[in-house]
Amino acid sequence: MPRVMAIVGERWSFLILRLAFSGIQHFEQFQAILGIARNILSDRLGKLVEHGVLERVPSRDDRRRVNYCLTEKGEALLPALIALRQWGERWETDLACKSTIGDKLTGQPLPPVVIRSIDGRALGLNDLCWIEEEAVS
Amino acid sequence: MPRVMAIVGERWSFLILRLAFSGIQHFEQFQAILGIARNILSDRLGKLVEHGVLERVPSRDDRRRVNYCLTEKGEALLPALIALRQWGERWETDLACKSTIGDKLTGQPLPPVVIRSIDGRALGLNDLCWIEEEAVS
Repeated sequence: MPRVMAIVGERWSFLILRLAFSGIQHFEQFQAILGIARNILSDRLGKLVEHGVLERVPSRDDRRRVNYCLTEKGEALLPALIALRQWGERWETDLACKSTIGDKLTGQPLPPVVIRSIDGRALGLNDLCWIEEEAVS
Repeated sequence: MPRVMAIVGERWSFLILRLAFSGIQHFEQFQAILGIARNILSDRLGKLVEHGVLERVPSRDDRRRVNYCLTEKGEALLPALIALRQWGERWETDLACKSTIGDKLTGQPLPPVVIRSIDGRALGLNDLCWIEEEAVS
């Protein structure tokens, strides 16, 4: 878990990831939106590539350019990022959120992310337990 | 969102929160498990209290002692923390996870946290859109 936070928890890495989920792929776009020093952006993009969260893909329009694309591992962060965002929207009420995430099909906001059991029951903190490896495998 | 990560993303704060979710409440317990300098622990606990994620509650056994308890706002981080943990278990395969989180009632591991629409459809990145504030309110 500390390892996970080393990937996602660093401020710039997190902001870069958020933009990647919004479809941003070019170094110059990240740089323009974040206003971050180029060497820091380059370092953080490199780390995200190293961790397998982003990958460098040559641009179709211009082979000299590189796109930073989410990998499958990167896309798998979606539930965690949405749950964090919903928490911020709900509890950090002094933040003026100008937008929220919705369901493209209906245009409705997403309901809160809920922890569920295999049979679909919503679970709270007191419904959870630790399972040791032997029992899991 | 950067604000959210300022609360959750700092390494020690994140580890403290994880222990709080496991039922740890005393300064001495946090200190013993994390092996963290007392002044840093004190600072991070104070910040989590300041952000309303933990609260200081006098111990029932010994009124001079204080328990650090998750607030409702703190408990609301559960889906995000579980989604992050599941991501780490699934993708950071070189981490030897000795335990996983389960459903107390059945003893079964939790299924992966999934983003769902109001009517229960599982949603991926391409099923999402941004909704501006005017449309939401």
